[in-house]
Amino acid sequence: MLGQVAVGGGAPVSVQTMAKADPAHVDTIVEQFLMAKRAGCDIGRIAVPDEAAVESIPEIRERTGLPIVADVHFNHRLAVAAAEIGADGLRVNPGNLGGPKNLAAVVEAAAKAGVPIRVGVNAGSMPKLDGEAMEATAENMVSVALEQAKAIEAMGYQAIKVSLKASEIHSMVAACRLFVERSNLPLHLGLTEAGPMLSGSVRSAAALSLLLAEGIGETIRVSLAAPPAEEVRVARTLLIALGLRSGPVVVACPTCGRTKAEVMLVAERVERSLEGDARDLTVAVMGCEVNGPGEARASDLGLAFGSGGTGLLFEKGQVVAKLPNGQLEQALMEKIFQRALEDSDGA
Amino acid sequence: MLGQVAVGGGAPVSVQTMAKADPAHVDTIVEQFLMAKRAGCDIGRIAVPDEAAVESIPEIRERTGLPIVADVHFNHRLAVAAAEIGADGLRVNPGNLGGPKNLAAVVEAAAKAGVPIRVGVNAGSMPKLDGEAMEATAENMVSVALEQAKAIEAMGYQAIKVSLKASEIHSMVAACRLFVERSNLPLHLGLTEAGPMLSGSVRSAAALSLLLAEGIGETIRVSLAAPPAEEVRVARTLLIALGLRSGPVVVACPTCGRTKAEVMLVAERVERSLEGDARDLTVAVMGCEVNGPGEARASDLGLAFGSGGTGLLFEKGQVVAKLPNGQLEQALMEKIFQRALEDSDGA
Repeated sequence: MLGQVAVGGGAPVSVQTMAKADPAHVDTIVEQFLMAKRAGCDIGRIAVPDEAAVESIPEIRERTGLPIVADVHFNHRLAVAAAEIGADGLRVNPGNLGGPKNLAAVVEAAAKAGVPIRVGVNAGSMPKLDGEAMEATAENMVSVALEQAKAIEAMGYQAIKVSLKASEIHSMVAACRLFVERSNLPLHLGLTEAGPMLSGSVRSAAALSLLLAEGIGETIRVSLAAPPAEEVRVARTLLIALGLRSGPVVVACPTCGRTKAEVMLVAERVERSLEGDARDLTVAVMGCEVNGPGEARASDLGLAFGSGGTGLLFEKGQVVAKLPNGQLEQALMEKIFQRALEDSDGA
Repeated sequence: MLGQVAVGGGAPVSVQTMAKADPAHVDTIVEQFLMAKRAGCDIGRIAVPDEAAVESIPEIRERTGLPIVADVHFNHRLAVAAAEIGADGLRVNPGNLGGPKNLAAVVEAAAKAGVPIRVGVNAGSMPKLDGEAMEATAENMVSVALEQAKAIEAMGYQAIKVSLKASEIHSMVAACRLFVERSNLPLHLGLTEAGPMLSGSVRSAAALSLLLAEGIGETIRVSLAAPPAEEVRVARTLLIALGLRSGPVVVACPTCGRTKAEVMLVAERVERSLEGDARDLTVAVMGCEVNGPGEARASDLGLAFGSGGTGLLFEKGQVVAKLPNGQLEQALMEKIFQRALEDSDGA
């Protein structure tokens, strides 16, 4: 459990992100997390490089309502302090805390506070062996993770998660596949340093899809050089697309020479209006006579623009209105809103 | 062969897109294709709903230098005319051409011109059986595709590609997996109507990754409600990330509370400068001391901003310069440009 969020044990795959602001700027971190939460974030992580960052944890938890994981490197005292002040989880690299005694202090504090520890192994910061960083093979990454997890377990603590991250897809996938052969500990998945907004999203989706489709991964983070809410949008879209979380899907005609309406704009607007919605709802925005009506009919709600200036509104496979193209978007939005009202009445 | 581009037979997985403009606006189509080509597009497709669109094919081919596939529905005469006037390929739905005689005329024209035919089966437009559209199960989609391909082969023509598209990942993946068990025909992969820019990219990457990682798929299209060049960017990023095409990868720090520089902006600019580049080149833009130097060192070129105002420039694992953070981007760009010059000297 990370605060109220279960990780592993059959719980839905959860979505994490990390604040991207100077730890001293608490208002900025809170705003980033609130936007991420609106997009569907379950867990927020912050870098904790100093005492002031430790002290900001209660305020960030309180103002965002998200479980907060403290990410600590090099200084075990900060990890201890974070657990004591109310962090919901710790993310450490046991190899850079300054030895077993320091690690034991962190584990003791975590156990006392009842917060889980993530052991994070990154290909870019492998431990040194004879003065040289170990090669980041799947075998080595898994060995390091298991050894570090074992060290914590030997101290009598079991609430451990593991992450094995690399920036190259095949390396990351191979390490995670090997890990689940050898351990039942919950895995936090992520392609690290995946890249800028679009390319990083594509690479992350490609990598995580391979693992998630095999049932590997209990919680995910998409690491983009982009704002936290964007990371969450990508992660959540992926989980919904793979059927691992409920939520809306906007199917949209890619448009072609047959399209007579502003499909791109309408699809983006419809999608934005559904942001963070947890209902399973497929909404189709189609502009072409070839696949349009068929696809719109297969969706919960849909519209298909027509080339003659008049299109169709669909609900659960039935045509519910024939309207001028210019009125279809408004009619679809009303249907979506109406269903939201019905759902909240029923709840 | 689609023009100069080989599809199947061990050729690299190729990237396609489709023009998104009224077929009468040839200049717009040409501009869209030139932008797509710059982003790495191999093949362009246009909707051919009328005679004017047929007549635009030679000009579009000539001005873009891309092989052009004519996408024809309902009217077999347009498909015949497209083959005759110089289209490099045809994409038809044999079920909507008006019967076997019409299909035979199209096949004859394609054979005479030596252009391949893609048989495209879409979940949203399945053929009717007893007046009702067949259910779009994997089994039904594959049966329809094989039957239609067989009808063309029975006419003595073998240059056939197949696509099996759906807007839901698991349906599309299941249909393609089943198809390759039953046929050796080359597959064109795509998640149809994948959605708006970002979510459609994520869903497409997730779906295509599952198949491409299994060696399934000879050519791909990412169908987004977004401009053709964006579809190509996503497709190409995916193929490079999976190691199926050569090209640059920008690894970028997602940034966190430890970051002191404009990593997001720098990473986006570096990536843009490498657009369409066919060299295998990993460039790291890192802002953090934790994984930064390690990741930058593992890349062909890289920079790691430092928290003290001074960072490092790396080349092939070696530190080649220690510079003020503000000078690192320029120094990295020069290195990239210098390598491009060396490569073109060597070529």
